[in-house]
Parts: sequence; structure tokens; C-alpha cells
Amino acid sequence: MSSLHFKILAQDPEGHARRGRMQLPHGMVETPVFMPVGTQATVKSLTPADLTDDIQASIILGNTYHLMLRPSADVVEKMGGLHKFMAWNRPILTDSGGFQVWSLGALRKIEADGVRFRSHIDGSSWFLGPKESMAIQRQLGSDIVMAFDECTPYPATYEQARESMQMSMRWAAQCREHLPVNEQQALFGIVQGGMYADLRRESLQSIADMDFEGIALGGLSVGEPKEEMMATLDALAAYLPKDKPHYVMGVGTPDDLIEGIDRGIDMFDCVMPSRNARNGTLFTDSGKINIKNLKHQTDASPIMEGCTCYTCQNFSRAYLRHLYIAKEILSARLNTLHNLHYYCDLMQRARDALEAQRWPEFRDQFLQQYRQN
Amino acid sequence: MSSLHFKILAQDPEGHARRGRMQLPHGMVETPVFMPVGTQATVKSLTPADLTDDIQASIILGNTYHLMLRPSADVVEKMGGLHKFMAWNRPILTDSGGFQVWSLGALRKIEADGVRFRSHIDGSSWFLGPKESMAIQRQLGSDIVMAFDECTPYPATYEQARESMQMSMRWAAQCREHLPVNEQQALFGIVQGGMYADLRRESLQSIADMDFEGIALGGLSVGEPKEEMMATLDALAAYLPKDKPHYVMGVGTPDDLIEGIDRGIDMFDCVMPSRNARNGTLFTDSGKINIKNLKHQTDASPIMEGCTCYTCQNFSRAYLRHLYIAKEILSARLNTLHNLHYYCDLMQRARDALEAQRWPEFRDQFLQQYRQN
Repeated sequence: MSSLHFKILAQDPEGHARRGRMQLPHGMVETPVFMPVGTQATVKSLTPADLTDDIQASIILGNTYHLMLRPSADVVEKMGGLHKFMAWNRPILTDSGGFQVWSLGALRKIEADGVRFRSHIDGSSWFLGPKESMAIQRQLGSDIVMAFDECTPYPATYEQARESMQMSMRWAAQCREHLPVNEQQALFGIVQGGMYADLRRESLQSIADMDFEGIALGGLSVGEPKEEMMATLDALAAYLPKDKPHYVMGVGTPDDLIEGIDRGIDMFDCVMPSRNARNGTLFTDSGKINIKNLKHQTDASPIMEGCTCYTCQNFSRAYLRHLYIAKEILSARLNTLHNLHYYCDLMQRARDALEAQRWPEFRDQFLQQYRQN
Repeated sequence: MSSLHFKILAQDPEGHARRGRMQLPHGMVETPVFMPVGTQATVKSLTPADLTDDIQASIILGNTYHLMLRPSADVVEKMGGLHKFMAWNRPILTDSGGFQVWSLGALRKIEADGVRFRSHIDGSSWFLGPKESMAIQRQLGSDIVMAFDECTPYPATYEQARESMQMSMRWAAQCREHLPVNEQQALFGIVQGGMYADLRRESLQSIADMDFEGIALGGLSVGEPKEEMMATLDALAAYLPKDKPHYVMGVGTPDDLIEGIDRGIDMFDCVMPSRNARNGTLFTDSGKINIKNLKHQTDASPIMEGCTCYTCQNFSRAYLRHLYIAKEILSARLNTLHNLHYYCDLMQRARDALEAQRWPEFRDQFLQQYRQN
């Protein structure tokens, strides 16, 4: 029996947006959901208590590539799995490592059964394919395991995109073979096909035909114009199996998330809120602000009026600017807390709007205000 | 009327150690106390909530030199003072900037009325003396203001130490003149005199004769052997005015604190617990541990058994080692939380022992266990 149970609680009658609930071994996830990225067994600068109490994150993401290199899957397994190791007792999704090794560029070589690569840390030699990725994610003990795939580059010719997609489909089948349906871990298949609608649909059909607990869309937000990403989501929205959760990987800005929900997406992850936080870029309903600007030097207002995060409840833009300029560690922490709170709260507001059957108004109002600057 | 009210609650009948209580404008401070250092309007990596709820710090220290350069005393004043700026509503002690400008070495020149120096940040030219330091600390709005003095170098000839001390005494009088007794801020005078007992006693007499709310001992922990520091404290212990709080500046290790309390000291500050934390050195009752050691790789135990800090309650040495090796920001935060909790809790245990009239046993047992390794 599967470890994942997904239920639709509400649906926008005019479109694809939906409000769902996903039961996983380590807890319930209300969708649409944003998953903070915890690459190296930590969401940078934050504790599990910050993530549950302030940010109200219900699921986080871990990176197989980073964890297999350091501290190693064996160490994590020996310490009782990733949940226990990092003291996070809610659900975790781990990626397959595919995207990261692909990103290594000159340091990796793609072969029939996977990717041979050198560690970015010490240059040591490794091999990662469907079989290895499943074994490692099993050691990590995540609630949701991602299939090992190849991220099709952008731009790619039709032929490149087709071959790459077909390899990913073969690998997807191997992943399911190495990690059959079980009560501990769910497995998501990943749709590829570049920016070609027919390849995407063909890939979606393959993934839908295999017995995956969820459907992910990969190879987006890899440098293509935003319109191409949205066109790809548009081309797939009507074909996504309605009874399974839909996850678009590595996306995106707050308005991308709203646009994604509108196209039937339930799950998102992205390093943007946390990485931007460390660079002093903070999110608000009226767009981004750059905290290092001189105009914030004596600004007593919070990042965003009405925000209930610890940062906004206690600190002025003036103080946050000072911390950033002075290169204080607390800067990264307070900024990350706000940005992730903002992202997760935005998903809460989306869920509320969907439940109240006022999704189109919420969507339009949000996008207009967010993009006005 | 003075803003500081100090009361002795218990006294070791065999020696100088005492348990006191200090009322300040922003709250009560139970002594002996350790004051975490918040150099740039932040105790590095921690929030005010961490300091109150977990570490139970009752007073922290801010650095005049750093704050005057960045964000500037004017900005802090405009934002409502240091308490409001950093959202810390308990007492703050600010140093005078004297030690920091003295530490600039080639970048500073000592004159009759103060020190001319160049900023370590941008090389800009500044002047800081008794008058300027009092004005800036008034702008910062700290509960306890420190007199502007010269830190006598170590080693120093008798003549150097005498001249330096005499200048500090002239400056101390000027500080009191520029910041007379008032209901908002207390002023502490600083005893200098190098490692010469007669100069130290002469300096203490001068400070005691001026109307300071507290007595600080400066120029210690500046490179001298530990025995010389303790000999200096020994030489002064019997002469410290009993009705005023005694503060030894920039000291020290956990065993230094216990030895200091034994010599009548009530207040301590030091960057050691927070700086060492960031370097992976963690304090326990059995001495220091270095978290990056390979032996901690799969060690499931906390930093210290029985410790009630958030770090020890939730994370293994194995996880803390991983964070340190992976250069994660959370490493600095969890380590700092533990070390400062350890220091402040040690002071709580000292206060308990003093109240229960079992100081000598507590002191001996602690020193033996701490130094056994």
C-alpha cells in the first residue's frame, strides 16, 4: 500500500487551481504548499522550531547530491535517517541528485545507467544513476523520493530534448523498479521534454502510465523566458492526473507560484526566498525590496506592514539594513525567516482563497499589486 | 538620584564571593552575572528571544567604538536608542570605546584629551576622549556607561603603568563631570595600574573616591599569565568597596569566572563563548571540546549531558560536526546558543551555591572537574 494519500478539498470551478491535502508518514501537508530548501540537512540559518512555529512549514526539501557527499548517506542512516539527524519530524522530500550532478557541467559525464561525476568539494569520483539514487534516498529516509532524471538544457533542439526525455523515461521506470510502492516512501516521476509541448505531453503520458504517487515537472526555470515556462504549464494543465499531487520543481518567484497554482500545481520548492534573503532581497506583497539601500537607513517600519513573522514583529528596516551592511550572521537569519514566512503564508492565503471559492479575485489582485512596481 | 541600586543578598563567610542584585532602568540583574557581548547591536547569530528565553541573559554588552562607526550614534539615537534599535528591553552596558581604539595599534595616536584614530572600516579620521565617549554613550542610552580609559599594555614598565594609570584617572574624573549622577544611566569607573599591586591600589582608591556607581577592573586578560591576573585580583579583593558592584572586564574562561567570583567579582563579559562557538569550540563542565574532531562523526550524544539549552535538547554532536564542516550558518547559531547558555547557567549555579552557603564546595568541585582534562 502507498505511503501517500492525496485528497482534493476544493477546486476553482473556472480553472485548474485546487486545494488539497496530502498525508505522508511524517504528517499532513496542506496544498498548495511551498517547501523550504534544506540542502545540507539544514534550511540555512534556521532551526526546526523556526520552521514549524514561525514559518509554519509542513514539508522541507533535502538534496541527495549534497548529503551523499557530506556527511554521506551512511552517516545519515547511522544517525537514524535525515529526520532524526536534523531533528525535523515533519515530512521531507529529497531530490534525486540528478539536477545537481547535471549542473556540475565539465565535472560530469552522462552514461547509459547514470552520471559519472567529481565532487565539487574534494574532486573525488562518484557515480549516480536510478539505482544508486533510490538506494541513497532510502538511506536518507525521506517521505517523498524523486526519480533520477536528466534535466534537459535550455535551449535544446527538438532532437536533443526528445533523446534526453526518453532517457529520463527509461530511468524513471528503473527508479520505480528499485523502489516499488511501499508504506514508508512515496516516489514521484518527473516529466521532461524541454519547451516542446508534444514531448512534454508524451513524457507526461509515460509518467502517468507508471505507478508513481505524484507527478513532477522538471527542466523548468532553467533560463527560459517566463512565457515559455508558463506556456509549458499551460500545455500540460489539462492532462495532469487529477488524483495525484503535481509538483513543479525549482520554481519560483511569488507571482510564479500564483501562476503555477492557477495551472494546477500543488507543490513548489525554490532556493530563491532563502538565497535572496542572504543577499538582502526581501519579499513583500508590493514586490521585492533591497534592504541595503540608503533609504532604509533610519526607516522605522518593518519589511512589510501586517506581516506576522518574528522579524517584522520586532525589527525595523533600519536595523535590518545595519545588520546587512555590518555583515552580521543575524542578518541572514532574520531575512530568511521573513522570506520563508512570506512564501509559506502566501500559500496559506492561496489555500484560503481556494476554499472560499474566491481564487480568481485573489489571484488577480495579488498579481496586480505584486507587479505594480 | 542614581539609576543603579545594588544589594548584597548573600556572602561567602570565608572569603570575598557574594551574591547580589542590581536594579537598573531596564530591569533587574542577579549577580554574579555574565554579560554576552553584542558588539554591533547584535549578539552574533542570536535574537533577543534566544537571549531571554533560552540563555536567560539579564544584561548584554554593546561596543561604543563599533556602534559610533556603524550605524553611528546619530542613527541609533534617531531610532530610539540601542534598546529599541535592537529590540532588547533588558539592561545594556556599553564600553567606552577606549579598549577598541587602543587595540587599533598603528591606526591611533593618544593625546592629552583622548585618542585620534582611523576607522578600521574605511580609514576615516575620528577623535574619542572622555567627553566624546560620554556623549555617544548617552546617545546610545545604555543602562551602564563605562568611563573612558587607557588600557595599559602588557608588559609595561612601572613608569609606563603609572603614567598610563594617572591619565586614566584624570579621564575618569572628566567622565564623571560630563555624565553626572542621573536617573537614566549609571557610570562605572575603571581601575588600571598594570600588574603592579601598589599602582592598582592607588587607582582603586582614586576610583573609589569619585562618585561612581560601580567599580571595574580593566587591563586584565591582555596577554599576562593567568597567575598574574589572579594575583592582581587578590591584591584588590579586600579593598573593593563592598556596597558597589565589581566588574572585571573581558574575562574569561569558565574557571576564570569562578576564580573571579571567589575574589569578589560580580560581573563579567567576554567574547570567548561566542567567538569560540563560531570556531567550533564548545564548553562543558569537563572542559572544552572541538566539534570538528572526527571522533564526533557519528556521536549521538549532545554537547553536554543534562544541558537544557535548545542545542543540547535537540541535536547530536554528529549533526553539529556536520554543520561545522559544511560551513553552515546554523553551526554558529547552535554553538553560540550552547556556549552562552553554558556561561549564564554557570553563573546561576554560582548564585545558587552562594545562597545555599556552599560556595567553597561548589568552587572546588567545579574547578577540579573542569580542569581534569
